[in-house]
Amino acid sequence: MKSEIIAVGSEMLTPYRQDSNSLYLTKKLNSLGVTVAFKTIVGDRRGDLVDAVKTALRRVDILVIMGGLGPTEDDLTREAVAEALSLSLRRDATQVAALHARAATWRISMPPNNLKQADVLEGATILANPNGSAPGQWLDITFSGYRKLLMLLPGPPHECAPLFDAECLPRLRAIVPPRAIAVRTLKAAMIPESQADKLLAPIYSTYTDIETTLLAHTGDLEISLMCSKPSAEAAEARVNELAGHIEDALADWLYSSQGDTLEQIVLYYLGLRQATLAVAESCTGGLIAQRITSVPGASRSFLGGTVVYSDHLKTAFADVPTKLIARHGAVSAEVAKALADGIRARTGATIGLGVTGIAGPTGATESKPVGLVYIAVSDALGTGSIDRTFRGDRLRVREWAAQLALDFVRRRLM
Amino acid sequence: MKSEIIAVGSEMLTPYRQDSNSLYLTKKLNSLGVTVAFKTIVGDRRGDLVDAVKTALRRVDILVIMGGLGPTEDDLTREAVAEALSLSLRRDATQVAALHARAATWRISMPPNNLKQADVLEGATILANPNGSAPGQWLDITFSGYRKLLMLLPGPPHECAPLFDAECLPRLRAIVPPRAIAVRTLKAAMIPESQADKLLAPIYSTYTDIETTLLAHTGDLEISLMCSKPSAEAAEARVNELAGHIEDALADWLYSSQGDTLEQIVLYYLGLRQATLAVAESCTGGLIAQRITSVPGASRSFLGGTVVYSDHLKTAFADVPTKLIARHGAVSAEVAKALADGIRARTGATIGLGVTGIAGPTGATESKPVGLVYIAVSDALGTGSIDRTFRGDRLRVREWAAQLALDFVRRRLM
Repeated sequence: MKSEIIAVGSEMLTPYRQDSNSLYLTKKLNSLGVTVAFKTIVGDRRGDLVDAVKTALRRVDILVIMGGLGPTEDDLTREAVAEALSLSLRRDATQVAALHARAATWRISMPPNNLKQADVLEGATILANPNGSAPGQWLDITFSGYRKLLMLLPGPPHECAPLFDAECLPRLRAIVPPRAIAVRTLKAAMIPESQADKLLAPIYSTYTDIETTLLAHTGDLEISLMCSKPSAEAAEARVNELAGHIEDALADWLYSSQGDTLEQIVLYYLGLRQATLAVAESCTGGLIAQRITSVPGASRSFLGGTVVYSDHLKTAFADVPTKLIARHGAVSAEVAKALADGIRARTGATIGLGVTGIAGPTGATESKPVGLVYIAVSDALGTGSIDRTFRGDRLRVREWAAQLALDFVRRRLM
Repeated sequence: MKSEIIAVGSEMLTPYRQDSNSLYLTKKLNSLGVTVAFKTIVGDRRGDLVDAVKTALRRVDILVIMGGLGPTEDDLTREAVAEALSLSLRRDATQVAALHARAATWRISMPPNNLKQADVLEGATILANPNGSAPGQWLDITFSGYRKLLMLLPGPPHECAPLFDAECLPRLRAIVPPRAIAVRTLKAAMIPESQADKLLAPIYSTYTDIETTLLAHTGDLEISLMCSKPSAEAAEARVNELAGHIEDALADWLYSSQGDTLEQIVLYYLGLRQATLAVAESCTGGLIAQRITSVPGASRSFLGGTVVYSDHLKTAFADVPTKLIARHGAVSAEVAKALADGIRARTGATIGLGVTGIAGPTGATESKPVGLVYIAVSDALGTGSIDRTFRGDRLRVREWAAQLALDFVRRRLM
């Protein structure tokens, strides 16, 4: 079955914003065996929206429309779909009550325009949106003699994705002819992209029945496998076979065979070893702590750490001797090691991580270029350090440094 | 004049790849006063491509098609446009010679299918592509009685952008009525979306000659204004007038009239006051430090801070009395204030920021729900705190908390 995704919002027709929800929805639709044949991005103009909806209904069976369900004058998706399909809109009493209740919880008075969000298309099923005020809507209709499935979803990603998973996916699964799809995501850290391709292309290119996609981003490589077969067993068997070969080829670059993030894996190993981690970050400025603490339950193994941006704080919070900084410079293997040792001693963590570097654009010296990063790990066995010089702007250098640091901890734990 | 951009390529209908050329082209089209009304992404299927081209010609004046000009079987843009417009294709002798010459330079024998790239649409002007083998094509035609401009461009960004600049931009400039464009981006923090709309819609809706876009994301509101006029002065004057009214309406919710980020503004005020900042983060886990240190030169005003995930570290790094934690709980106004006071005293910063909360999904108690956050700021004038309960998952609560904390510091500095 063919589908189209329409992303609604004038901001996505500017040079500054892109639709990104459609990537997630595509993955989910593909998992049902549904192809995405078109994606359309349209602004908050009623006439254009009606045109986009009519065009899509003419050419696909399944239409997902995201955005334009909010309370503002610009939010016109409900009205446009009603016009395109010649359906009426009714104000749903239960939704009105829900909007009032929501406003009461937030202790704000509700502006009258908010009530737009309670308007429901004739014949539509309301899809509960636990993460926002505008509910989704589901329509199963006949258009020009053909059955069409329409979904109206809120635009914000944290509302769109859970709503689609909870409300649309089960409804689609009950209608779309069943196909068995096996998917697998392998993850590797810090392997150069060209090396990954040289290693892996000869392997995966022999599996013509598996769609293999390599996606690399600042030291993180994601390998996605997707195979569709008449039976789940057959699809799983093929994917497992190819995954096994890729795992062997990647050796210890591989950190997950199940799509986990690197921070999840680090926390997993820490839990396994009953170890704790504390960090002292200079150039990464909290990025490593932020990644680790984004994982629910991180507090079981992550004690915390310090962002020691100034030299004074390197001493005050991680006991780095001022003489050491004076002798070797704040960006040096010695200071990275002292940070790792210091934060470990201060916090009582099993493992201490220290990071120092020059993120740029300023701060380079004659001997130390922008992008130079020192990373050290301290544990009961001693203190080890590595250094690398990364290319790119400030944000890229910080991302690379955080990735290398987490991978260094992972390797130490293995 | 209205335009549409069609990106051709099945890979952009997978979960892993996105069209990005269109952002660049949008910027260039906008600079001529041409609006992008639709973007369509379509795969390498001839029927779908013909449909996309016909749909676009019906609804816009200017159509840019990118991709599908290469030598492979999947490259069908020329054929699809020919079919949509009922035009013939002729093999251009000069282009054939150029392809042979190119192959000779690379010392490769030319596969016969390469010659497809010499096929030119009836009436089309060939656009030289110095960075690749497939030339672009330009069509100035009448379709259903209306003048339409069509551009066929190669897909790879390093071919598409230079070819558009060198060959399409001057041609368009000679046809499109001359326009000057003024743009402005205003930013506001922590204003509820519906309240922003209630305040602003009556203002900006009277400026029908300015395109106003509101974009809200976890407490950050971006208001983009774009105005197109015959002269730059006229466009600037209109945008300045509306921007002035919006600034007045937003009052102290507004933090930038020039599109700066909240962390840039906090650093700007810190610099202005010759003040320094240090942070003690619990639930945000480094997110605030990470945002601040993402700004080049942050080290001038930001000393650093601590991620005090465990109670022990709250005491060890910010001198929060253990008794205070025992009496009020780690998530309390008292502990937030103690964190702010403690980190300020420890680091010697002018301003100390303390954040504690329950990011979830676990950690809630009977009296303290997931999403509850306390934020405190300590300075020479004393210590103030606020609390809010945010809805959403762990990542959202953390983002909201970081935004509120930065805004609290901004307001203290104002």
